[in-house]
Amino acid sequence: MGLLKQKHLIGLKDISKEDIELILKHAFSFREILDRPIKKVPTLNGKTIANLFFENSTRTKISFELAERRLSADTINFAKNTSSINKGESLKDTIKNIETMKIDCIVIRHNASGCCYHIKEYVDCVIINAGDGMFEHPTQALLDIMSIKEKKGSIKNLNIGIVGDIYHSRTARSNIFGLTKLGANVMLCGPANLVPEDMKEFGVKINYNIDEVLEWADVVNVLRIQKERFNSNFLPSSREYRNAFGITKERLKKIKKEIIIMHPGPTNIGVEIDNYVVESDQSIIFDQVLNGVAIRMSVLYLLLSSK
Amino acid sequence: MGLLKQKHLIGLKDISKEDIELILKHAFSFREILDRPIKKVPTLNGKTIANLFFENSTRTKISFELAERRLSADTINFAKNTSSINKGESLKDTIKNIETMKIDCIVIRHNASGCCYHIKEYVDCVIINAGDGMFEHPTQALLDIMSIKEKKGSIKNLNIGIVGDIYHSRTARSNIFGLTKLGANVMLCGPANLVPEDMKEFGVKINYNIDEVLEWADVVNVLRIQKERFNSNFLPSSREYRNAFGITKERLKKIKKEIIIMHPGPTNIGVEIDNYVVESDQSIIFDQVLNGVAIRMSVLYLLLSSK
Amino acid sequence: MGLLKQKHLIGLKDISKEDIELILKHAFSFREILDRPIKKVPTLNGKTIANLFFENSTRTKISFELAERRLSADTINFAKNTSSINKGESLKDTIKNIETMKIDCIVIRHNASGCCYHIKEYVDCVIINAGDGMFEHPTQALLDIMSIKEKKGSIKNLNIGIVGDIYHSRTARSNIFGLTKLGANVMLCGPANLVPEDMKEFGVKINYNIDEVLEWADVVNVLRIQKERFNSNFLPSSREYRNAFGITKERLKKIKKEIIIMHPGPTNIGVEIDNYVVESDQSIIFDQVLNGVAIRMSVLYLLLSSK
Repeated sequence: MGLLKQKHLIGLKDISKEDIELILKHAFSFREILDRPIKKVPTLNGKTIANLFFENSTRTKISFELAERRLSADTINFAKNTSSINKGESLKDTIKNIETMKIDCIVIRHNASGCCYHIKEYVDCVIINAGDGMFEHPTQALLDIMSIKEKKGSIKNLNIGIVGDIYHSRTARSNIFGLTKLGANVMLCGPANLVPEDMKEFGVKINYNIDEVLEWADVVNVLRIQKERFNSNFLPSSREYRNAFGITKERLKKIKKEIIIMHPGPTNIGVEIDNYVVESDQSIIFDQVLNGVAIRMSVLYLLLSSK
Repeated sequence: MGLLKQKHLIGLKDISKEDIELILKHAFSFREILDRPIKKVPTLNGKTIANLFFENSTRTKISFELAERRLSADTINFAKNTSSINKGESLKDTIKNIETMKIDCIVIRHNASGCCYHIKEYVDCVIINAGDGMFEHPTQALLDIMSIKEKKGSIKNLNIGIVGDIYHSRTARSNIFGLTKLGANVMLCGPANLVPEDMKEFGVKINYNIDEVLEWADVVNVLRIQKERFNSNFLPSSREYRNAFGITKERLKKIKKEIIIMHPGPTNIGVEIDNYVVESDQSIIFDQVLNGVAIRMSVLYLLLSSK
Repeated sequence: MGLLKQKHLIGLKDISKEDIELILKHAFSFREILDRPIKKVPTLNGKTIANLFFENSTRTKISFELAERRLSADTINFAKNTSSINKGESLKDTIKNIETMKIDCIVIRHNASGCCYHIKEYVDCVIINAGDGMFEHPTQALLDIMSIKEKKGSIKNLNIGIVGDIYHSRTARSNIFGLTKLGANVMLCGPANLVPEDMKEFGVKINYNIDEVLEWADVVNVLRIQKERFNSNFLPSSREYRNAFGITKERLKKIKKEIIIMHPGPTNIGVEIDNYVVESDQSIIFDQVLNGVAIRMSVLYLLLSSK
């Protein structure tokens, strides 16, 4: 067992508030290391981590790899398209085999919602969920929370809007679980078919009027719209989406107070967010990217170190 | 020259019994290191190894990479689909170029049967065959032998059955060469067109009745059936194959003595082997996976260290 | 700022003669390290380098990776086909994100001509151009220059022919800029539509008769012909190309003085060059490959070390 109450990081639904706070505390320490000329510490020397990315990814994959290298761990990367998965090997088979080779930790991204809950049942090594289908993306939510805390000092009682395709978003779900645990007021916004009323069960408000949400919020987390959705029945055109929910230059200028703008990236400029907003002083999008490395270093450190 | 009589590991056909025993001896030492919290030793610090996998692979590739990292070597990975091979560069050209950059060892998997025999003619660096077409897969056979030895103490006079598509299997061929050298009795079993009579020249018995083979054997190595074969003229349906040669729950229960079940993976559950058999106490399939890392550490150490 | 006058290595067009000479000087030192049993130095320990190859590559990619590892840097590899580029993320977005994670240096190959000029405008980290469209390939030209200097002692007043598809060749362009700066006489040769007259503006001669060029030259750098060109309007058949411009066994034997033959690889044997020529004593093609690692170590060292 590592230094958290839990062995794995599967999601923020089941993690304790204390564990979240411990992760954040150490993440701020690692964040300082990232400003040094030599960003490397020997913390996980001799540990082996396998990065299994069954979905394409740039920033999450690189962010985890950097976190691992900077903790001096050895890493094994597994790319779907050069593996035996093409021979029809099952996910369970692949993971059990990799673990058998004495891997300390598996970081996994997979399109099967909730797959990490199954995986942790049949492995002994530490599992870190790097995004599982529509379920959870805990390190993304933790870096979002860290970035808010960095600006605002505390999460408690903050008004935080999440805008976009909530229904399909693992980032939104993990944010909701984490933010409500820390005492924030969360309000969801987006097209009615993508922000179903029954999400209120998570302890959040819903408001389909983006201008009202912006008026209310201290922080707005703007989700990436999957362009594929426009070809389906889920969404009208990207122009209509922008008119109804886009964080445009005009909307930003209309807000009276200082509001913080976040986006997990990559952005669809001119659809859910304008370039003006991305590059404005209120955007902390690049802080999120850097804090992501610190959060992942913290999570890896806490889960892989011994008491 | 390293610590073996031979410079490369191309196959078990030409290797001496003494070299096999030396590899096994050191593999058992490395196997102990894998149980330590820190599994890394500085043995190959400063050496560079190129992993050239021209065929998809999960476990062999990861197993070699782990072995290399745990010996502190630097590794270069070469994936067919992101390389200049797509520009029509020849295998010889690629390999000579990589070697010219002062690589100490090339680990290669390629679909051209026997290609490693050609490669070693034009390079100076150490060549390790990680599977060449239908020819040899020496580290797989060595880990199989190590896993048998771990259970039985010695290979000599053991009755070892190999079941499946022997004709196309490099794993079978390397096992036959290695096991017969160490004094085992080897019996092949499978469909007649995939277990040709003239294989008796290798000093093995052939028996087309799986139940008789199971009755006779101390150990059975069950090969993976390539599902592509069912679409060709080689094999009837997977159901018929299972009936005739599958290591089913029923067949396992019928055997009176303690028999060891092996499989190189990945398994086709319900075709050549049942899940019940894979998970039974008699299966050493996961021992094989872990021993694979130890065997590869041993081979790399012995070939890349100086006398 | 590193130890050169410039912060990045974008091309040889804008680099000073002094910087080229400093790179060459240190490359010869690193070349000696490559002959040692342990080829690794701790120079860039703790630095992180991202290799972003948006075009397939074997030798340039491996050469950079080896150079980085042998300087003890940490490396992150980015393969186009497993990244979010498939989600439509822009090059600028990708690069800004990677840099935000505190990467010290980005090595980039991309098919957009001149893209590195744009990239350096929006990043703070060091950019090394590993080939950008038809623009420049500075480390290739530097290794070519190093290989000539190794044989001839000096570049000044040497007669150097470059043969092939000059128009589309970033290697040719970088060679022209570097060689003329160091005082060489450069003569271009190839099909008239691929060696346009206005290239004389670069301070080079043009001669469409390969036999006259071979008679004049001390060194001939034979470019790879892209076979795709034969299907377009650019070139007649590969046979006609060989007759008109190929460095054949016959042509090599006809030359009276000792001429040095170079090729950036991979070669099209029997088209722009014969195997006899590649393997002759006059060919320094494999020296080029090895010097490539030394040049890249030198460039990385000089750009990433502090004054």
